[in-house]
Amino acid sequence: MAKNAFYAQSGGVTAVINASACGVIETARKHGDKIGTVYAGRNGIIGALTEDLIDTSLESDTDIAALRYTPSGGFGSCRFKLRGLEESKAEYERLIEVFKAHDIGYFFYNGGGDSADTCYKISQLSEKMGYPIQAIHIPKTVDNDLPITDTCPGFGSVAKYIAVSTLEASFDVRSMAKTSTKIFVLEVMGRHAGWIAAAGGLVEDQGIPVVILFPEIEFDKEKFMARVKGRVEEHGFCSIVVSEGAHWPDGKFLAEQGTRDAFGHAQLGGAAPVVANMIKDELGLKFHWAVADYLQRAARHLASKTDVEQAYAVGKAGVEFAINGDNAIMPAIERLSNDPFEWKIGKALLSEVANVEKMMPMDFISDDGFGITDACKAYLLPLIQGEDYPPYKNGLPDYVTLKNITIDKKLPVFEL
Amino acid sequence: MAKNAFYAQSGGVTAVINASACGVIETARKHGDKIGTVYAGRNGIIGALTEDLIDTSLESDTDIAALRYTPSGGFGSCRFKLRGLEESKAEYERLIEVFKAHDIGYFFYNGGGDSADTCYKISQLSEKMGYPIQAIHIPKTVDNDLPITDTCPGFGSVAKYIAVSTLEASFDVRSMAKTSTKIFVLEVMGRHAGWIAAAGGLVEDQGIPVVILFPEIEFDKEKFMARVKGRVEEHGFCSIVVSEGAHWPDGKFLAEQGTRDAFGHAQLGGAAPVVANMIKDELGLKFHWAVADYLQRAARHLASKTDVEQAYAVGKAGVEFAINGDNAIMPAIERLSNDPFEWKIGKALLSEVANVEKMMPMDFISDDGFGITDACKAYLLPLIQGEDYPPYKNGLPDYVTLKNITIDKKLPVFEL
Repeated sequence: MAKNAFYAQSGGVTAVINASACGVIETARKHGDKIGTVYAGRNGIIGALTEDLIDTSLESDTDIAALRYTPSGGFGSCRFKLRGLEESKAEYERLIEVFKAHDIGYFFYNGGGDSADTCYKISQLSEKMGYPIQAIHIPKTVDNDLPITDTCPGFGSVAKYIAVSTLEASFDVRSMAKTSTKIFVLEVMGRHAGWIAAAGGLVEDQGIPVVILFPEIEFDKEKFMARVKGRVEEHGFCSIVVSEGAHWPDGKFLAEQGTRDAFGHAQLGGAAPVVANMIKDELGLKFHWAVADYLQRAARHLASKTDVEQAYAVGKAGVEFAINGDNAIMPAIERLSNDPFEWKIGKALLSEVANVEKMMPMDFISDDGFGITDACKAYLLPLIQGEDYPPYKNGLPDYVTLKNITIDKKLPVFEL
Repeated sequence: MAKNAFYAQSGGVTAVINASACGVIETARKHGDKIGTVYAGRNGIIGALTEDLIDTSLESDTDIAALRYTPSGGFGSCRFKLRGLEESKAEYERLIEVFKAHDIGYFFYNGGGDSADTCYKISQLSEKMGYPIQAIHIPKTVDNDLPITDTCPGFGSVAKYIAVSTLEASFDVRSMAKTSTKIFVLEVMGRHAGWIAAAGGLVEDQGIPVVILFPEIEFDKEKFMARVKGRVEEHGFCSIVVSEGAHWPDGKFLAEQGTRDAFGHAQLGGAAPVVANMIKDELGLKFHWAVADYLQRAARHLASKTDVEQAYAVGKAGVEFAINGDNAIMPAIERLSNDPFEWKIGKALLSEVANVEKMMPMDFISDDGFGITDACKAYLLPLIQGEDYPPYKNGLPDYVTLKNITIDKKLPVFEL
């Protein structure tokens, strides 16, 4: 008899994590002889711990297909980190119990580094506990920091959003620069790595001056001001893409300015207004600034077609690998060539994925520290190729909200 | 012999002001017997004052057609306000001199309230000075505050951007709300009127709780917190759309918090982080916030098809009216019906447009002051209908940058 499957979304959601969910569920539905019901965790792994299991078989084929073009986590996600096998023993054992109670033999965990680690541990522990689970990690993270895979689904769409937004805002500033705004500052995600900020550099080829502040490079105010001044003198304006992780040599984030509000509370601001005000103070230039925040990772309306296809493909491959008996692996994207862009899905061992963080290669950052190299462009450009628009209804994207009906619980309550 | 025309873009640019330019130039090219060369002001009206006249006949038909899908001001814009006829006498007289020197008989001025006023004054003065100019105002402003016309080209696309962004970010927050972010705050443009903020309310129909802070409504912290708390209790999360013009009863903007940086400088922030931190202090809820700034008005990638068509139509009609002998008028959009949405181009007298600001009707704001009414939805929805995607090349929109070659000057230098 076919075992059931459990699927959960983990950590920060993206524009295409649901495309992976779509890949998992649609592929499982095609293999009813091997996989019974796909249960999804309501709000991620918490759903497994609390036995809040959504019965995805109650969702129509049409609604599951709509996940492909719906951003966010269709079943809910969570930030809930399981630690070492000893430290979080009760949680791991509970997961296995829940899987056993619902005859779940496949575990598909869709997330970043932490979930790869959890996935790997469940595979190990379930064997020890005599209820072996095939644990497959489906890669997802806008941070693009998983090893082995060429990229992480979710990243390409953020990169496209940042590149397009930088281009459009730069055209705007260029129009206004004669008498008004000369500086546009866009703050982007990426606390530890500059992958997302790097995407802003892709518009340089359209004649737009862009200065990037990477978290990999210690902020040097004097050098930065000289660079901005030079670009404004040459072009009449300048766009700045600042990573939220940009920081001073002592490690303090640019965003932490020690400002206090009227009540003496530390004021949380962004890096963008700090950089913008600094330029005004030093160079006397009029500025505008934007903070993209969730807009960048939720922007399914502007998703990269490549990213959507890869997100779907890793979900699909995850199920196929599971059916073929694989365990403790992650479908990984292998880049075969840049031009034409060709890729295929390979297989990474979770033992080699867990707890390994891929950093941006330093030869992706230009010598002056404010731009990207040709090697970086060659890497990034294929990832933003193609558009994959959602359908619209009455002027707005026709995203799906699933029914998300949970099944009856069989186990005692588990306190989180 | 056909008189030449002068076209200038004024004030803040939009995603579709170039579509109006496209309408003007393409239509003029079809009427070579009536209109000679269309000159465009480099950086708006400043280009006329300094005799920096771009010869648009040197741009290919393909490049002019590309203006239809290129955001920003293709010829440059400026913030340069001409005042009363006496106060700015030298400037007005200079304009007429430049027009005379280059045999310009048609003046197309593409902007908001200030440019409508300038346009009207030029029409009056030129007659007095014995060199009559047909002055036509082409409406443009994301502020949507011009009278008579049903809407202002530029606004519909911003409204669509804000509605889509609110929808997408809200889906994101909904996914994360169980363990993480419960509040998302989006700051939008509109210092004096809540038209843009109102667009965030369009996503309520998709089950998204949205609380709007309008500039029309004095900020009442207690009432606001109660409203947010209620929405979070009901939905588990809440999105807030705050206008940059949201203010306290004493008129002070929410954004002005009196914060100081390490050097004692007043810190300019946005309203979004202020509102977000306030909610955290009062309700203890985790938040994210974004400031859309220029991204919202430059987002041609997400333009409303209705808006693009109307922007083109007012440009085209402006030229047709001019050819038919009209003067001191503005093509105005007349709404004929909501469902199906039908509209046509009418004609407004500049004497009735200049110095009149259209406010948002108070019956567009719900009784509690935090949402929009059905009347508002019925007004807004047609304006965001349809998509009109730009072509893409190598992953990015293939926007045009014009050659912008200016003609030889004939007059002495004019000091601004």
